[in-house]
Amino acid sequence: MSFSSHLKHLAFALILGFGQSLFTQSSALAQEIQPKQPNIIVIFADDLGYGDLGTFGTPNIRTPHLDQMANEGQKWTNFYVAASVCTPSRAGLLTGRLPIRSGMTSDKRGVLFPDSKGGLPQSELTLARMLKQVGYQTAAVGKWHLGHLSPHLPTDHGFDSYFGIPYSNDMNRTENIEGKNWIDAQIQLAEEERFLAYNVPLMRNREIIEQPTDQRTLTKRYTEETVSQIKQMKEGTFFIYLAHSLPHIPLFRSEEFKNVSKGGMYGDVVEEIDWSVGKILQTLKEEGLAENTLVIFTSDNGPWHIFKAHGGSAGMLRGAKGGTFEGGLRVPTIFWWPGNLNQGVVMDMATTLDLLPTISKLTGAELPNDREYDGYDISPLLFGTGKSQREVVFYYQGAQVHALRWGDYKAHFYLQGEYGTQTAHPTTNPPTEVPSQRTIQDPPLLFDLSTDPGERHNIAENHPEIIAEIRRILEAHLATIKPVENQLEK
Amino acid sequence: MSFSSHLKHLAFALILGFGQSLFTQSSALAQEIQPKQPNIIVIFADDLGYGDLGTFGTPNIRTPHLDQMANEGQKWTNFYVAASVCTPSRAGLLTGRLPIRSGMTSDKRGVLFPDSKGGLPQSELTLARMLKQVGYQTAAVGKWHLGHLSPHLPTDHGFDSYFGIPYSNDMNRTENIEGKNWIDAQIQLAEEERFLAYNVPLMRNREIIEQPTDQRTLTKRYTEETVSQIKQMKEGTFFIYLAHSLPHIPLFRSEEFKNVSKGGMYGDVVEEIDWSVGKILQTLKEEGLAENTLVIFTSDNGPWHIFKAHGGSAGMLRGAKGGTFEGGLRVPTIFWWPGNLNQGVVMDMATTLDLLPTISKLTGAELPNDREYDGYDISPLLFGTGKSQREVVFYYQGAQVHALRWGDYKAHFYLQGEYGTQTAHPTTNPPTEVPSQRTIQDPPLLFDLSTDPGERHNIAENHPEIIAEIRRILEAHLATIKPVENQLEK
Repeated sequence: MSFSSHLKHLAFALILGFGQSLFTQSSALAQEIQPKQPNIIVIFADDLGYGDLGTFGTPNIRTPHLDQMANEGQKWTNFYVAASVCTPSRAGLLTGRLPIRSGMTSDKRGVLFPDSKGGLPQSELTLARMLKQVGYQTAAVGKWHLGHLSPHLPTDHGFDSYFGIPYSNDMNRTENIEGKNWIDAQIQLAEEERFLAYNVPLMRNREIIEQPTDQRTLTKRYTEETVSQIKQMKEGTFFIYLAHSLPHIPLFRSEEFKNVSKGGMYGDVVEEIDWSVGKILQTLKEEGLAENTLVIFTSDNGPWHIFKAHGGSAGMLRGAKGGTFEGGLRVPTIFWWPGNLNQGVVMDMATTLDLLPTISKLTGAELPNDREYDGYDISPLLFGTGKSQREVVFYYQGAQVHALRWGDYKAHFYLQGEYGTQTAHPTTNPPTEVPSQRTIQDPPLLFDLSTDPGERHNIAENHPEIIAEIRRILEAHLATIKPVENQLEK
Repeated sequence: MSFSSHLKHLAFALILGFGQSLFTQSSALAQEIQPKQPNIIVIFADDLGYGDLGTFGTPNIRTPHLDQMANEGQKWTNFYVAASVCTPSRAGLLTGRLPIRSGMTSDKRGVLFPDSKGGLPQSELTLARMLKQVGYQTAAVGKWHLGHLSPHLPTDHGFDSYFGIPYSNDMNRTENIEGKNWIDAQIQLAEEERFLAYNVPLMRNREIIEQPTDQRTLTKRYTEETVSQIKQMKEGTFFIYLAHSLPHIPLFRSEEFKNVSKGGMYGDVVEEIDWSVGKILQTLKEEGLAENTLVIFTSDNGPWHIFKAHGGSAGMLRGAKGGTFEGGLRVPTIFWWPGNLNQGVVMDMATTLDLLPTISKLTGAELPNDREYDGYDISPLLFGTGKSQREVVFYYQGAQVHALRWGDYKAHFYLQGEYGTQTAHPTTNPPTEVPSQRTIQDPPLLFDLSTDPGERHNIAENHPEIIAEIRRILEAHLATIKPVENQLEK
């Protein structure tokens, strides 16, 4: 609660009379007013697959804190991100706009690299900047990947502070790994040498404070920073964006998490992130902030399958990071806000694009009306009072809409294996092959995700009318896309 | 509690003195003694896939009662059945012996059919007969499929009563469906006509009381029977074996569950089974029996993929019913026994073969030592006091060991598509094809199920020593198999 909102409570309490203690009145009012301006923490894992949490079906990784978070809150099973790779996915979450609108996606370069000059344009309004307008304190912790040069840094985009690495943890490779077979080399290096192979900078606000970053303690240090930020900002209202660098490869975990998981090194890494979530929720409870803090846990895209045992699992979903099957963009998502949410499993469609309009609604922060938004207010689903207006999800790959979900129907206009792999699909008979390069599908493939979430049974033949309607929706959408300067190709 | 055990408690209470009320003493003692002879309910779903429950990862099917059962008890993520089809799987569960030992598996006929003369031999000791030796009342409810002629019926094998259908719900087909394309015809028939197409008898003890069975109310009627049996037997100690006929195809659900699930008709059927579980646990709580009743929920084998939207999902696991990839034999399993179990997720290997020795241990029922058993006491895992001795799982298909899991390594000596399908596998590059007919693999495929539960990455090349050890284990096992009369070929 901010100081001015404290004053308001005090005034109300005085007006309401002295029959009850001031404290009681203030609490009763707080319950009414505070949910409109909750603290907000978004925890964004990197390359965590749909199937990698206990409550989402992993057989080998223990995630008791996230499972409990889901039991106490809402588990979302049809929740999507804006793209199946890092940079555009993050741009979508923070702006509520498809990355094509901000120039943050490209067919030529999937994400930003250390040699990139571009980044999220200043013309974009981030969640942080929006919340600052209504008095929030803001902190970014973890991976940024929306531009590591000014004016693209977190502190250029509404965050009061930043602690983390500015791009992916597998970038800025040294000669220890550059030029070698990337997949094998990074798995084979011992952890002590592995982090030295990536000359990744660690930043505090705008300064580099460590290079290469000792990634072995990164999850632990992000967690300590988040806990510290909660304690520093607890007297006012705050927004924390914690974007973990892991379980993106190369994998690291701190000493306490070495060989603790039945799921191997990848399991260790996820179990440390689970510990981190537990630590943050515990801090909120201890500080008396739980009932006034909305915590959202999700992932930036699906698992990176080509890394085999070092990549995660999309569970029953087809596909993975880098592609537009469900495994690429549907992510394990949990909302937590004790005493406020309509507890249970939510199967409605929603996306990270919906966070901006929803948080705008919850906090009263206004959005400029000079631009297109791609999100919808999902607060009726949070409180169990209604539905959201979302009927469609777009699956962009680079600058192209590969697929479109309308209700439970999903049409694939293009097929392309993740990261150039050529893949086949299980238990289709005969096996359906996915080409390594973008290939047009005409007629498109059509799946009913309600009875076939694994995208196994193409039903296009029987539903030309649905495909026609989906084509109309796609065309209407494409008409709203206006050319902008591409940031990834700079 | 049986009458004689009541007498024992009374005697102890008298000896311990009168300082406290008799009731209190009796309760305190009961807590100590009762866990040794709990009531036992085994709920066995039919063709329910590993990924079909909320807590096992389904995005579209609501199973709040089973999820809560798992939260209150133990969720087992590495739990197997004895075979990937009905008859041998059931023989394994009830006898604690691999079906090859009782003649209940065959390469020629996978299961028993309405024209079969054979069934579970009288020489086999079932869970029911074992428990009768220590004073249990016993009831079988649901699908039997271990022989529908004497002396193979439930009441021939230690069950005091029986209510259910004696074989699968898709058998005894009438001309409405026989000879047509089986898969399409059964899906296309409306429910009102569909149950008439299968002339399946419903039995009460040894009598047929309805034919064809109105399958639309089967789950509801099984549930009512189970609740009624609990109430009838509650003064003593009881064992109930509730083997649901569903979600095996043809699918049916009662009026109240029509179109309630986002997961289509299959989802409706599973949600009614979830309701059924909730009803049974609620009855136990209301009757004050919860703390003295061990309830085990599991499935007889994996999902029947060839039925597409009418078949379930194995989640992240490869394969399905009828095959020996994980999806065929690993099943979603929950143990529930409030106040007694070490709550949480259990990732140790166990199988339905372990139920007999475990329940023998819990109840003090003795097992004859004139035969081979294939199960191990898993009670240390139930109570969190230790491990089981299980290090190996055998994956039989018919009379042949197709695969063997030793620790986390699994070797495939034979490959064969489920039910003659030819399948390929996702995200292997290039795609690996599975032949439709049994095909020897030399060297065998080898997977590490800890980091690769989806059996995607064959690591045989790097681990010849592990394959050699697995071969030794296999040979030692095969030496214990003695020829017996085959019951399925009769």
